[in-house]
Amino acid sequence: MSLFIALTAAMLTFTSNVYSLSSSGDPWLLTPGPITTSLTVKKSMLHDYGSRDSDFIRINRDILNRLLAIINGVETHVAVPLQGSGTFVVEAMLHTLVSDRDCLLILSNGTYGRRMAKICDKTSIRYLTIDFPEDTPVSTDLLLSCLSDHPEITHVAVVYCETTTGMLNPIQEIAQVVAAKKRKLLIDAISAFGALPLDSKTTPFDAVAVSSNKCLQGVPGCGFCLVRKNSLQQAKGNTKSLSLDLYDQWETMEKTGQWRFTPPIQVIFALHKALEELEKEGGIAAREKRYRENFEVLLQGMKRLGFKLYLSEKNQTPIIATFLTPNHSNFDFNIFYNRLKEKGFIIYPGKLTVVDSFRIGCIGDIHPDQLKGALSAIEEVLHELNINKEELV
Amino acid sequence: MSLFIALTAAMLTFTSNVYSLSSSGDPWLLTPGPITTSLTVKKSMLHDYGSRDSDFIRINRDILNRLLAIINGVETHVAVPLQGSGTFVVEAMLHTLVSDRDCLLILSNGTYGRRMAKICDKTSIRYLTIDFPEDTPVSTDLLLSCLSDHPEITHVAVVYCETTTGMLNPIQEIAQVVAAKKRKLLIDAISAFGALPLDSKTTPFDAVAVSSNKCLQGVPGCGFCLVRKNSLQQAKGNTKSLSLDLYDQWETMEKTGQWRFTPPIQVIFALHKALEELEKEGGIAAREKRYRENFEVLLQGMKRLGFKLYLSEKNQTPIIATFLTPNHSNFDFNIFYNRLKEKGFIIYPGKLTVVDSFRIGCIGDIHPDQLKGALSAIEEVLHELNINKEELV
Repeated sequence: MSLFIALTAAMLTFTSNVYSLSSSGDPWLLTPGPITTSLTVKKSMLHDYGSRDSDFIRINRDILNRLLAIINGVETHVAVPLQGSGTFVVEAMLHTLVSDRDCLLILSNGTYGRRMAKICDKTSIRYLTIDFPEDTPVSTDLLLSCLSDHPEITHVAVVYCETTTGMLNPIQEIAQVVAAKKRKLLIDAISAFGALPLDSKTTPFDAVAVSSNKCLQGVPGCGFCLVRKNSLQQAKGNTKSLSLDLYDQWETMEKTGQWRFTPPIQVIFALHKALEELEKEGGIAAREKRYRENFEVLLQGMKRLGFKLYLSEKNQTPIIATFLTPNHSNFDFNIFYNRLKEKGFIIYPGKLTVVDSFRIGCIGDIHPDQLKGALSAIEEVLHELNINKEELV
Repeated sequence: MSLFIALTAAMLTFTSNVYSLSSSGDPWLLTPGPITTSLTVKKSMLHDYGSRDSDFIRINRDILNRLLAIINGVETHVAVPLQGSGTFVVEAMLHTLVSDRDCLLILSNGTYGRRMAKICDKTSIRYLTIDFPEDTPVSTDLLLSCLSDHPEITHVAVVYCETTTGMLNPIQEIAQVVAAKKRKLLIDAISAFGALPLDSKTTPFDAVAVSSNKCLQGVPGCGFCLVRKNSLQQAKGNTKSLSLDLYDQWETMEKTGQWRFTPPIQVIFALHKALEELEKEGGIAAREKRYRENFEVLLQGMKRLGFKLYLSEKNQTPIIATFLTPNHSNFDFNIFYNRLKEKGFIIYPGKLTVVDSFRIGCIGDIHPDQLKGALSAIEEVLHELNINKEELV
């Protein structure tokens, strides 16, 4: 029996549980991605098409225009697609826009901030970092004084929602400081884009990295960098990589409407459908509202069960929540994870460097009902493991 | 009306033609990729799943094992996955395996050979090239004398099937020479893998770049580098890119079974199904046989219609054929392309630097019947354009 059939069979056994599965019969993904997509998004992948054909070019153009509209940047910015995961886009953004003569300041308070530093370590990008503790948002006071003390800094990079914790960094205040100090801002919005506002008119930035997956609710496989046009025009020849050269991809697309190298066409079809569904839902504001409802249900329920949120609520995005692993001898994360999976919910391990934790995501094609289901499942698992909630607090 | 609906509607109008469409209602893709996949491969994408879950890890492991079995390299080589198109994998292969102390010889007779040189131009990889005309296979005599004259060369890179033309490079002879001269061979087999034999025991090589799409008949979105294990073990820290670092990806997968960065899970599901279907078809040998039948039908039919194959038949893979654009005042490639598309067949523009040409692919979930249909459609279009085949010859 093939593994895929085995997997499908394993999924089918979930139906004997009280919790309903997603429309595709899979466990609900309460993770930072891959996320649960709608069945209509998945069905849009039931096509093959020529990547150099005019119909496909039209679909791509529509996607790029929709993304630029989201940042209110149709006149000022251009959208450049890239194959790969979010990290590929972040790396391409840094490689393409930060030249050998520039110097980058990385504001870091988690894995994804540190990953930008790792990208710079690999290549010749000069950089400085300000490292904040994982439970602390980026401080604009420190940013301001650092920019004053270091005239060599030309660019500032920051993660909008630091997925390590679910931390909300104060992107608008950061953008104001960077603009006031006449530097250029590069944003990793991989996990935030589509759920949190990002208006290029009020939050000035040079580039933002975006994924097809996550809060846009497409499937993973490509991403986009939305770049200020005149910054990209000056970026020719900066990158040390052909595949990650956003200038080259942009120039090709301007001329031909085409991707340079074979695009993941089914992923594009899915994203196109997902962007239509985003519009139908009411755009970013409506999506943020639903995610906030999801998050509120989750947070209140987890508190009631005795779990403790890692971050202060005021620093928290509604995208993903980090909970401290209970200090209880019966609590084993792997058992907890597997029991929840059997009940139809996949959660996410923690990534904190300082304390043990786990994460539960609130994004994707999920609604408060699924979070309520997950909470009931968590309560059952605690019961099965003989853990009283009084012992958790 | 959305563009995607418009596209679907446009596809539906094809059904009024005499030629049947693919199982998904799309035109047949007679291209070097994206190719027409089976409906079962596409349907395997109707799932979401957690990329860090044990079920997903098992599917990945099975894919990697199947790929290593194809090259008869389970004991000697390891398979490293990478998000992106084939070019991403080729670039990652060069970045990871050719260090600053090494020197690469690129054997080039088309776009994909030149692309490897372009990759090296971007970064600090030292290289030499031997450029052959686009209609000429790589000469092992020239290779041998070049390796004798240039002791600094450590690695040799070559494209197995040069998609620019459909050229078959003599990979086994090349491998023998490279091994005899104690150098390391890196193969771009993006368009050949899955259709042409590549046994690491009889064709010694250090690494080969492979795509999820093309002759494996999955969808595009990721690729793999199959690397000799002890060469990869020595490659730590070579790359200037985090995303394209195959050593780092391999090390992570050894430890955790996981991709470093979010993988395109639906693309992986599709590839897993496609590899099962490859096995069911009878493996590489059976697939090569079907493609050769496709090619033979195409070639004889095109000759009968008055078209001329660009390459000598003896240098030709059965993967894609390049035909010279007829020198006839009524023949306009764009009109020809669009008329064929209306009839349900998407072909491919040429990429030759010297003469005008167009290409027709024979790979994917297509059979001689589809090639016969395409030939009838081509004959009709010539008739519609008032072109007599006698005028083409």
